[in-house]
Order: sequence, then C-alpha cells, then structure tokens
Amino acid sequence: MFSNLSAGALGLSLDHTTAIDHAAKHGFGGVDPDLGHFRSLGSPSAVAEHADSIRERGLQWGMAGLPVPLDGPAETFRSALADLPDHLELLHAAGVDRVGTWLRPMHQELDHRQNWRLHLGRLSLVAELLADAGIRLGLEYIGPKTLWSTERFPFIHSLREARELIAESGATNVGLILDSYHWYTAAESAEDLAGLTDADIVSVDINDARDDRELDEQQDLDRRLPYATGVIDLAGFMDAVRAADYTGPVKVEPFMTELAQQPVDEVLADVSRRLDRAVAAA
Amino acid sequence: MFSNLSAGALGLSLDHTTAIDHAAKHGFGGVDPDLGHFRSLGSPSAVAEHADSIRERGLQWGMAGLPVPLDGPAETFRSALADLPDHLELLHAAGVDRVGTWLRPMHQELDHRQNWRLHLGRLSLVAELLADAGIRLGLEYIGPKTLWSTERFPFIHSLREARELIAESGATNVGLILDSYHWYTAAESAEDLAGLTDADIVSVDINDARDDRELDEQQDLDRRLPYATGVIDLAGFMDAVRAADYTGPVKVEPFMTELAQQPVDEVLADVSRRLDRAVAAA
Amino acid sequence: MFSNLSAGALGLSLDHTTAIDHAAKHGFGGVDPDLGHFRSLGSPSAVAEHADSIRERGLQWGMAGLPVPLDGPAETFRSALADLPDHLELLHAAGVDRVGTWLRPMHQELDHRQNWRLHLGRLSLVAELLADAGIRLGLEYIGPKTLWSTERFPFIHSLREARELIAESGATNVGLILDSYHWYTAAESAEDLAGLTDADIVSVDINDARDDRELDEQQDLDRRLPYATGVIDLAGFMDAVRAADYTGPVKVEPFMTELAQQPVDEVLADVSRRLDRAVAAA
Amino acid sequence: MFSNLSAGALGLSLDHTTAIDHAAKHGFGGVDPDLGHFRSLGSPSAVAEHADSIRERGLQWGMAGLPVPLDGPAETFRSALADLPDHLELLHAAGVDRVGTWLRPMHQELDHRQNWRLHLGRLSLVAELLADAGIRLGLEYIGPKTLWSTERFPFIHSLREARELIAESGATNVGLILDSYHWYTAAESAEDLAGLTDADIVSVDINDARDDRELDEQQDLDRRLPYATGVIDLAGFMDAVRAADYTGPVKVEPFMTELAQQPVDEVLADVSRRLDRAVAAA
Repeated sequence: MFSNLSAGALGLSLDHTTAIDHAAKHGFGGVDPDLGHFRSLGSPSAVAEHADSIRERGLQWGMAGLPVPLDGPAETFRSALADLPDHLELLHAAGVDRVGTWLRPMHQELDHRQNWRLHLGRLSLVAELLADAGIRLGLEYIGPKTLWSTERFPFIHSLREARELIAESGATNVGLILDSYHWYTAAESAEDLAGLTDADIVSVDINDARDDRELDEQQDLDRRLPYATGVIDLAGFMDAVRAADYTGPVKVEPFMTELAQQPVDEVLADVSRRLDRAVAAA
Repeated sequence: MFSNLSAGALGLSLDHTTAIDHAAKHGFGGVDPDLGHFRSLGSPSAVAEHADSIRERGLQWGMAGLPVPLDGPAETFRSALADLPDHLELLHAAGVDRVGTWLRPMHQELDHRQNWRLHLGRLSLVAELLADAGIRLGLEYIGPKTLWSTERFPFIHSLREARELIAESGATNVGLILDSYHWYTAAESAEDLAGLTDADIVSVDINDARDDRELDEQQDLDRRLPYATGVIDLAGFMDAVRAADYTGPVKVEPFMTELAQQPVDEVLADVSRRLDRAVAAA
Repeated sequence: MFSNLSAGALGLSLDHTTAIDHAAKHGFGGVDPDLGHFRSLGSPSAVAEHADSIRERGLQWGMAGLPVPLDGPAETFRSALADLPDHLELLHAAGVDRVGTWLRPMHQELDHRQNWRLHLGRLSLVAELLADAGIRLGLEYIGPKTLWSTERFPFIHSLREARELIAESGATNVGLILDSYHWYTAAESAEDLAGLTDADIVSVDINDARDDRELDEQQDLDRRLPYATGVIDLAGFMDAVRAADYTGPVKVEPFMTELAQQPVDEVLADVSRRLDRAVAAA
Repeated sequence: MFSNLSAGALGLSLDHTTAIDHAAKHGFGGVDPDLGHFRSLGSPSAVAEHADSIRERGLQWGMAGLPVPLDGPAETFRSALADLPDHLELLHAAGVDRVGTWLRPMHQELDHRQNWRLHLGRLSLVAELLADAGIRLGLEYIGPKTLWSTERFPFIHSLREARELIAESGATNVGLILDSYHWYTAAESAEDLAGLTDADIVSVDINDARDDRELDEQQDLDRRLPYATGVIDLAGFMDAVRAADYTGPVKVEPFMTELAQQPVDEVLADVSRRLDRAVAAA
C-alpha cells in the first residue's frame, strides 16, 4: 500500500498540477487523479502523456470519483451512463484503475429492501461497464448513527451489509473503501476485517475521532487526524489491512475545515508523516 | 368489525372470567381469549363448552397471543413448536381464529437482511402450522423512531415492509395488526392504507398520541386514549379500515399505567364508548 | 379491449402504411405502432400528425417493442439507454403508451437468482424512464418446457414468477403480456388469472396449440390460430381477461409460416373474425 | 481425508455391526454412523462406549443422515424438530459431527424463489440447532438434467446455487456434500471448485458415469464405480478437494444394484482400493 494525497479529502483547494507537486515534495506515494483536468487536456493521448509524467515523478494514482450517481433519479443516472464511455476512455488512458463512491446510509422514502434493489441493480450495471475498461469500483459504507438515523429508513451502514451488496452484484471488480472512522462508528472490530483480501479493498481511509463524544454521538463531518486522539484503534485497523495484503492507496479525510486555514506545506508534511506511520507500522 | 376488550392491552389485571363479565356488561362486541385459562379447563371439550357460553353472551373472540417467539433463540423457537399442537388444539376447540405478535423493530447484531431472513423463515413455517388449524396470524409493525433507532440495525418499522414480509412468506393466513399509533409514528397516511382488504387485516388497535411531543419524539409505551388529543387522524384511519370491509376486533392499547389506578367500571365504560365511536363512525 | 393488427406477430411483411390500411379495412380496433416508421417521419410533430390520422380512421395503437434489450450485454444495454430519450419522444408524440418485451426463459451461464437480479435491476431502471414518458411496459413470460429446459439454468416461465418480478421492481407502469399459449404450456388455469386488474395487463395474445402434441411437447414457435384446435381453453382465458376489466389490445401470434404464403386479405379477415369472437364473447 | 464405508450408499444391506467389521477388515478409514443402531443401545453412555470401540479399531465416523426432512410438509418438519434433541444427544454422545441431506432439484408447485425461501428458512433453523450440538450439516446438490427437468420448476442443481443458499443461511456449520457425479452432470470444472476450504466441505462422494451416454442423458441413479469408465475427471476433482485441505470422509455411491448380488468381500475390497487411489493420489 502507499500513502496518497487526496487534496479534496483534506478540504484543500489545490489544482491538479499543484497537488502533484505537493505529493512529490512531501513524499506521498500517490495522488488522486482529476477527471476534470484530464478532460481539459483534450485527448486520451495527452492524458496518457500526463500520466507518464506522474509516474516519472514516482507517484501512483489514487482513486477517482465514480462519474455516475448510483442512487440518482433514473434520468440523471441514464444520462451519466450515456457520458460514461468518454470518462472511462480518459481514465483508461491515464492508467487509473480505481474509482469510488459512498453509500448514503438512509432514505426518506425507500425502505431498506427497496433501496437495496435500487443500489444492486445500478451497481451491477456500472460494475460491468467499468470492468470492460479494467477499472475497479470501491464502495464506502458510512457508520455514524448521527447520520443513518436522520431519515425514515436507515440503509447500509456496516461492513457486513456492504460486503453482501458487493457479493450479490456478482461483480469481481467491486470492493470496499475501508475508512477507520466508519469502522469505529459502526462498532466494528478487527475481527470483522478478518479474511479480507486485496481484492476486497479498493481504498483505505484513516481518521481518528473526537475524544469528547461517545461513539453514537460522533458526527460524520467532524473527525480528527489519524493518531490525534487515540479514540480509534488505528493499530488494529492497519494490522487487519496489512493482513489482507492490501496494495492500494491510503489517505486521510478528516473533514476539519481549519486545515484550509493553515499553511499547506505544514498540513501536508504532517499528513504525510501520519500516513507513513500507518503504512509502515508492523 | 367489533369493539373488543383486551384487558392486557389496557394494563388491567383481570382474570379471564372477570374480563368476560366486564365485556358483556360494558357492551363490548368481543373479548380476548386466554390460552392460560383454556389450559386450566383441562380438555378441548371443556374449552369448547366455555366458548359456547361466551357466544351465548353475545361476545366474539378477539385475538390470542402467538404462543411462539418468532425471533427467539433457535432452541426456544424449536421448543415452542414442539408444544404448538396442544395450544392449537385448544384454540381450535374454542373457535379462536386470530393470533398475533409484534415485530421487534431493531436488532443489535442482525442487520436488516439477516433479520428479514430469520423472520421470513420462521414466519412461513408457523403460518403453515396455523393454517392447518384454521387460524390466522396478525403481525404488528412498530413505528416510533425512539424505538427503532435504539440498536445498531433498525428493522421493519413501516406498513410497506410488513406487507412485503407477509407477501414473501407466501402465506394466505397472515395479515396485519394495524395500530393507529404505529401508522402515525411511521408518518403514514390514509393513502398507505388504500387497497387493503379484510384478508389483509387480522386486528385493529386505535390509540392517540401525546400532544406535547413531536412525531419523532413519541414513545412506544406512552400513548393516549383514542380521541383524547386529536394528534392522530383517527377518522382517516378508521375510514380506511372501513373501506377495507374489515370484520375483526378493534381494541385500545394506550400503555397508560394510570388506568390501573382508576375504577375498572369507569375505565371500561369510557373505553367502550371510544371504541363504539370508532367502529360506528361513517 | 380491442382487436389489434400486429403484422409482425402474424409473420406478414407489411409496411406500416399498408398495415394501417388493412387494419381499417378488416375492422381491427387497433394496429401496432412502428418506431422505424416514426423515425422516418423526421420529427415529433410529423409523428403526432401521423397518429392523428390513425385515430381519424378509428384505430388505436397496439404495443411497440421495447427499444432496449433487457438482458443484453452491459454495453449494449447502456448504449440503448443512451438512445432511449429519442425513441420515447417519438412514442410520446404518437400517443403510444404501451411497449413490450419477452423474458428469455433460460440461460446457459446465469443461474435463476443471478438472472433475476440482472432482470430486476435493468427492469426497474427502464420502467422509471418509461414512466417519465407516460408509457407502460409489458413483460411476456414464455411457457413451453421445450424452450426453458434447453439451457443449464431455467428462468422465469410462469405467471407467478413474472408477477413477482414486476412487484419487486416497485414499478407501477409494468404489467404482463398475457398469451394464452404460454398460460397453457405453463399448465396454468383460470384460477391463476383471478384477481388481475387492467393495471396488471399491458397486452393480450390469443393462440391455440397443436392437437397432436402433449403439453410438454409443444414448441414455442409452432402454434395454431385461436379456436383452431380447441386444445387451449380460450373461453376460460378470455373470461378471466374480461373479469380483469382489461382495456387494451388483443392480438394473434401463431408463428405459422404458411400464413405468409396465403392471400393477405384472406388471412386478415380470418384473424379479425377470430379476434372479434374472443373480444366479444361473454 | 479418509476412505469411508457407507453400506447404504453402496446398496448393501449390512447391519451396523457387520459394516464396522467390514470397514476394519478392508482397510477403510471410517464408517457411517447408524442412528437407528444408536437408539437401540438405549442410552447416550452406551452410545459413547460403542463409539469408543469404533475408534479403538482405528475407524472414524463418516456422516449420518439429517434426521429432519428439510422440505417436508410443515407438520412433518415440526414433528421432526420436536424429536431432534434426542437424536442430537445420541450423535453428540457418539462424537458424530457430520450429518447430511440432498437438495431435491425440482418442484411441481413451488417456483425457484418460493422453494429457495422454504429451504433457506428451514436450513437456518436446523443449522442453528445442530450448531448447538457441535454438528456440521452437509448439503448435496443434484446435477443431472434428467432429474431437474422432470417437474415444472427446476431448483438448485449447481454448486454456485448451493453455495449461495449456504451463505444466505448465515450458518457457519453448513457445507457441501461434493459428489463428482453431480459436479460432472452440472457441467462444472475444477475451476468451479477453486477457493473452497475444508470448512466448505462436509463430505465427498466419488463416482464415475456411464460412457455410453451424453452428459445431459446421464441418470441420477445409474452411475459407475470411480475410475471405471474415465468419463469423469476424477483426478481434477480430487486435486481440487486436496487443494481445499479437506479432512473428511470420501465414499462411493454408484447406485449399481448388481453390487448387492456380488460377494460382499469382493465388492468392498474393490471399493476400498478405488477410494485409496482417490485419497492417496497426488
């Protein structure tokens, strides 16, 4: 696995070129691809050249966002599918092989079974289209009760549910986005991660939680940098990730708005160190 | 449909004989059967005689409790099944044709799909055994968010989910226990009840809600007598029940402990009047 | 309901204009729309004009083919979705409100559950897109054992399975294409049709079966004209259709290649008489 | 793994004591337990003594039949559950830890989904009761098309379906009975067996097929002894079983009535040799 700079996940407004420079400067192993930037390059061959230059700087690609809203209105979803081949061509040209999305853990109208069918049908189709382009899809379950309990029908908010959805899809190119924060707020343990393999994991996020809140009071968008509070057992989490022989990107997504107010170099140096600690530990 | 005296649902400790006397005295149309009392009579023929005497007093049977814990541990469930034929023989001898249970709307360990499978498998089996004895099974979904959100995995807490469970069971002798309190707390409307028929409903409960709480703050065990506060649209609810040509019992289940402190005759006269209003209204 | 001329279902190569003339001449109540012809008219407004002229001749629209292959490869399906809005605009302009497809009753690779998930996911999406255009979708289950048993995994080949698929889709604009031939070969009875309403049926086909074959030997593509052999209980079938208050098209689909060798007027006069008998009988 | 003498599977009418003697004499590693014999011993302690004597002769237990009809009528199933604890007590006393049953691959009334729900519900319950007694349950899927195509609704007849049923049951003590004959008739390959572990397999049967019939013409009850015709790739099958680190019994179930007409010692010596070849090969 490798540390990955995802400026968006850090809440930093860095354009793609700047993000790449920072990733190289601060010793990240990878950087998130930017589909918007790829489009601006004008052609698949230009994108391929761009990707070569990244690799020459010793960087790998992290994960792009899935350019299809899995649970959008039917027409929105259809329209995104119509545009999908163009996006996949660019991602393919760049050598990006991971895209991801999160699963909204509740719905005001669709009950658990209706929402499951919606996601399963959409997911199966999208996964097959991605597979044709050699791209894997990561799904992130969202753990905090303060989120899943806010609408009438709670939905997937645990590792087990996410794994069952993936298994039912029949897709072999779909896996998990494992975030220590969701794992913690879902009250899961290292045991729940046992048996996972590299094929089951598309991306890993490590974050810590506030130490002045109970588990069920933690907010999805108010976290702490990894190792900041020690609330989350990051050692146990990363041991399980290592036991899976995971080979992909590891990033931080703390939703701390104050990071954007601090000197970028300071923030990134700190984040890089924390990721190195997570990736290296044994 | 007919008004039904369910002493247990009112929180009153009346023995079966006393309950029958009160039902007759206060003009209820029916009274709940008491399987414990049936057993004490010693034989199916004695139970049949007892049932004749009830009918002679102009009373019908309400609904007995399902003598099997649908979601109990496997051995508890198995053991209840072993005893079931004896219970069914007594219920059959008495002419009781409705039993019911409620669906626990959350679980700390089983996620929605696992819990669904547990309920579906158990329900299908029990329903078939009841069908052989000519007995229908009512299932009550529980609406309050203050209950379904208290454990890790919310479960069935809406009419739609309950109907899907019943449909999947393939059983034709399973229907709903419709409680205005759950219908209200589940944020359902008269439209949700449209299309129901007598075959879909095994029992009806009418209750009102406290007027000093928001919908999502209502507690399952703290309700009001029907028409007490006007929070719940009982007119719309009963119109829908009538539109279904419902023919079964209607009872009150307010979970108001103070009722047990008041003079029984006063309480029952009041409850009977409220039920008459609900049953008669057109 | 009304008799409908579907030249394709009769194996006749009539262009759309000729088909319309024949439908009017031979007293059919409706005629199948032709999406290819609509496209050739160049614009939605030209299609609307064309549709007006049909209605002036006293004809209604039958059912168009669904322009999306429900079980095609993912990319084929995606590509058809990309084109769908153009097709729907033309159908909408013409006032066509029924499209249909059949369900392949077996698969060499996908087992029943995998194939169910494929169909359910695709169906839900397509149904929602059609609903936005005010169009209903009919699904035809295929009954003959000589077809469903020819590959490794039999799939939907009964009314009950088709109805469950539709119910699970959650769509209110999807219904059945009821074909007496499939109803017969699926060993179904009038009782199986009980309870259907007009909302459950998108199209009706009536055909008879060869009288020199057993039920399980009947071939999907070798049938007889309705009332030809009396093998199929068309009276019972049509009584059930009438009991559903069905208001849509009724057509014949005999797969008899000899019809194309006979004088068209003779064939259509005969077919029209047979449909009138079916539609009128009471 | 070890060779196992299952007299019943060979069509031999040997009482339990005789079977044990033969198993020891002909060098089998195990012998099937006989619940009827256990019952005749009168008490769990007598059964435990009996089991000790078996182990002293160097034999392990094979697999007992599941004493519950998974797909029987509800009352039959219930009644078997009522008796189950007594059976489990005896099996437990004997140290038997494997029971098994087969899955009927078709149904005249229940469609695939209805039958799935029936099996899933019953299986989950039975598995949990067995788990409490430390017993694993093996399920055998049946492959021949000449069987699954004989009734209206084909059911589970492939490894993949059987594995999905087991996974959905949520039980960790349920696995497969892998029979080379079903694997062959289901047109499966060594690849389909890849990834299985010892925990996934409860019993293994090896049989060969007639060489004068096509795959889809093979009859469930007309097989050949392993290595007799070479139709089935037993080397590939056993390699996959070995790759799973399988530790349980391997037996032969040829359904060849002529075996009962031959000298028992000759038959068992031959069967033992064939099993040794399968078990030993590397």
